[in-house]
Amino acid sequence: MSTACDTETRWSEAEFRQSLHALEALYWDRHPFHERLHNGRLDKDELRLWVANRWYYQRCLPQKDAAIIANCPLPEVRREWLPRIVYHDGADGSPGGAEKWLHLAEAVGLERAEVVSERLVLPGVRFAVDAYLDFARRRPWLEAVASGLTELFSPGLLSYRLGRMRQHYPWIAEEGFAYFTARIDMVEAEGRSLLDLVVRHAETRAQQQACVDALAFKCDVLSAVLDALDYHTEAGDGRAVR
Amino acid sequence: MSTACDTETRWSEAEFRQSLHALEALYWDRHPFHERLHNGRLDKDELRLWVANRWYYQRCLPQKDAAIIANCPLPEVRREWLPRIVYHDGADGSPGGAEKWLHLAEAVGLERAEVVSERLVLPGVRFAVDAYLDFARRRPWLEAVASGLTELFSPGLLSYRLGRMRQHYPWIAEEGFAYFTARIDMVEAEGRSLLDLVVRHAETRAQQQACVDALAFKCDVLSAVLDALDYHTEAGDGRAVR
Repeated sequence: MSTACDTETRWSEAEFRQSLHALEALYWDRHPFHERLHNGRLDKDELRLWVANRWYYQRCLPQKDAAIIANCPLPEVRREWLPRIVYHDGADGSPGGAEKWLHLAEAVGLERAEVVSERLVLPGVRFAVDAYLDFARRRPWLEAVASGLTELFSPGLLSYRLGRMRQHYPWIAEEGFAYFTARIDMVEAEGRSLLDLVVRHAETRAQQQACVDALAFKCDVLSAVLDALDYHTEAGDGRAVR
Repeated sequence: MSTACDTETRWSEAEFRQSLHALEALYWDRHPFHERLHNGRLDKDELRLWVANRWYYQRCLPQKDAAIIANCPLPEVRREWLPRIVYHDGADGSPGGAEKWLHLAEAVGLERAEVVSERLVLPGVRFAVDAYLDFARRRPWLEAVASGLTELFSPGLLSYRLGRMRQHYPWIAEEGFAYFTARIDMVEAEGRSLLDLVVRHAETRAQQQACVDALAFKCDVLSAVLDALDYHTEAGDGRAVR
């Protein structure tokens, strides 16, 4: 990491990668709400609320990715990024990530229309996700791309979650987990190529720092989503779903 | 209130006023965090965190008001709105609302520089307040103006809070309360003239409904601010200030 006297010196590639990886400490994998989810301590209504709120995040992702493309002057980066929109939105009748998330919603007993109406989305979740979309629209494409580096931290979480959910919520039909199984198959490679992209294009120390800040911001977004869910569902404190 | 068959009929002035006043149920006056504040159950660090986070709201208000003016084509409305910027920012060396909030910050033992650095601002608070500013920038001026109608609900809260704070936190020097005493003197009249402005300019049922929705949105913003504070300070659940 830098000291006061070399603020303007570009980090070596190894230092930069290390600065990014160090932010794993801010990642939401061990957030109290995730702990409850993974330990089978959510009741059906709470699990549904999680799925319905996380839907709002999922549905904003293709717009986030399009905003990145809209801000990027480099055709080779735009070409690399475009499949992400297809990944979320699907194409030619094959379901994308958003559709698979709706399958999970149905598997936990939610009506599709209720989820899509966003009636169950908590204000705090909406504000956090909107902040992420706004960040992608307003900030340089490299920073918005770097904010997606939470992918570096997620492979372990996704596999762990899938196992724990199968164990603790056996009433969820297997097809409900299609989002996770598809994502697990690709996220590690996607995260690696994303990191390479960021390392390649962060040419100054200021850009490197902005990428680190962007990843920290994204961790804040994710945590705020779970903070709101935890606050509004936690049993025994008289504040259950207001 | 309307029924399904008269959705397009403009509400009478009385109906419209009633629809707006009905949203007082969503106002943050009895939020659990406010209950703790008003009942003397915040310790010094929690009280400081409230002041430092609420600062972020206060500092965004003049930008919110300028965004309204920026979107408004009516000079008579712009002229009416302009003093609000001066109210927050001050003029000719006389302190505005923002400066008075910093006096409160100092009175509770915060360093001014620490507050202004925004280091203590919780992500959930930032996202909620940013959503409010974004709303004022993107939505028609009338809706952004209507979002400020929480002023209708605040006179009682401000007086009540001042009394409770003097009682429960007697170590706060009286000059720390200048924000509240100045605000109490004017908010009732300001709220009335704001309501008149909204009633006068909401010419269609759709505009009236949009104003009601804007006020509900604002209540969500304020609640989300306190949700984040309550979640990150509540004692006894092992989640104190992360």
